[in-house]
Amino acid sequence: MTEKLDGAKIKLTLAYDGSDFHGWQVQKGGDITVQSTLQEAIFKVCGKNLPVTGCSRTDAGVHANEFVCHTDMINIPCEKLPIALNTHLPRSVAVKSAQMVPFDFHARYSCIGKEYIYKILNSKIRDPFLCGRVMQYPRPIDVDALCAIAPAFCGKKDFCAFMAQGSKIVDTVRTVKYCEIFREGDMVTLRIAADGFLYNMVRIIAGTFILAAEKGFSAGDIKDIIASHERCRAGATAPACGLYLNKVFY
Amino acid sequence: MTEKLDGAKIKLTLAYDGSDFHGWQVQKGGDITVQSTLQEAIFKVCGKNLPVTGCSRTDAGVHANEFVCHTDMINIPCEKLPIALNTHLPRSVAVKSAQMVPFDFHARYSCIGKEYIYKILNSKIRDPFLCGRVMQYPRPIDVDALCAIAPAFCGKKDFCAFMAQGSKIVDTVRTVKYCEIFREGDMVTLRIAADGFLYNMVRIIAGTFILAAEKGFSAGDIKDIIASHERCRAGATAPACGLYLNKVFY
Repeated sequence: MTEKLDGAKIKLTLAYDGSDFHGWQVQKGGDITVQSTLQEAIFKVCGKNLPVTGCSRTDAGVHANEFVCHTDMINIPCEKLPIALNTHLPRSVAVKSAQMVPFDFHARYSCIGKEYIYKILNSKIRDPFLCGRVMQYPRPIDVDALCAIAPAFCGKKDFCAFMAQGSKIVDTVRTVKYCEIFREGDMVTLRIAADGFLYNMVRIIAGTFILAAEKGFSAGDIKDIIASHERCRAGATAPACGLYLNKVFY
Repeated sequence: MTEKLDGAKIKLTLAYDGSDFHGWQVQKGGDITVQSTLQEAIFKVCGKNLPVTGCSRTDAGVHANEFVCHTDMINIPCEKLPIALNTHLPRSVAVKSAQMVPFDFHARYSCIGKEYIYKILNSKIRDPFLCGRVMQYPRPIDVDALCAIAPAFCGKKDFCAFMAQGSKIVDTVRTVKYCEIFREGDMVTLRIAADGFLYNMVRIIAGTFILAAEKGFSAGDIKDIIASHERCRAGATAPACGLYLNKVFY
């Protein structure tokens, strides 16, 4: 049974390590997802089956430093809700904040943009504290050269070359607001924000940066790949474990 | 069978997430330890049972950013050894480097000091990426006040008030080279180096910093606790999961 109180919703901001989950979205097979896990915790806290609606689907193994969802009013003060829910959540998920929002707020449809980061550990030797949380890449990456191609991804463009094949989306135009890549020690981080992303778009862009590092692509090469509209010209889909939903804009 | 080639040993530098291990040292009950895991990997790589000797024991759940051990010569070039061993190690352990050292090198007895860090997540809300890797402490910590007491731990002193009860060590004098505490966002880190540490010494010192934050201790209070030689006057033993062996000095 779903309780609906007119006038307000609760916006929950989460963080989660996606390693243990089959993504965000409830699965028919009953696989453990973040959504199903959160709904169970809400039931334990307020005794009601309240569905939660997420800002996006994330794939299995993808992490979130910030993920927003909404649900109907819960009869518990917002300031107490994070700790109440966290008590019933596994340690791989945390509700970071809860906030009352107007009833017309929708985690997915009110969202005007998202920022993802993709983490590449550029080292031959793995880091025991980062396994499952980065893509490891052993060969040298010239990040200065990649900085020069990053702006080529920015702007309003048709990104169909950077969409998983088989995706049924028709409108493949998205506006990338910023795209940057930087190094801190062995960690190379790609940060990209857009009004929306196609399926696997960030992972394919990350794979294209890896390809660019290997082939020595110029900004012109990236523009050519975008203009080609051909998936096969972009890089491989980088592993899910390096991807983090980092910010959600409303 | 142990192979011994005169003239050289191999010094291995590891990092490991201690969550999955019953500490470093091989256990009689056959619990999984870092040492047993590494010895199995060495056997798989070179086909010989070569014992490894660690720079110290670490307790169950304690981590290492840098842990040094030695073993006898292995018939594989040092530069290839880390990747060869890592192939056979679980992802919670990594051999970061291997180096040929003179035969009189001993991971434990040649060590002239160690640096530990203790990580305290000062937040009411847990971090899914840091669970099992920090102590979480929800109440505010005035790190500036703690900075003022940190120097009271420095110098050559009898630290028996900071040793686990039941320990059989007789000489409880140690020289703390530096002791500092600092904040980066929600993370409060204690960093301490000494010529050696008593059993649980860093965890008890960390617990004493927590107690100092709660009670408002001065540097004089810390000096009194040290001078009292009474374990009961120091703080509780902070959890293993916040502790990292960080550097080993030779």
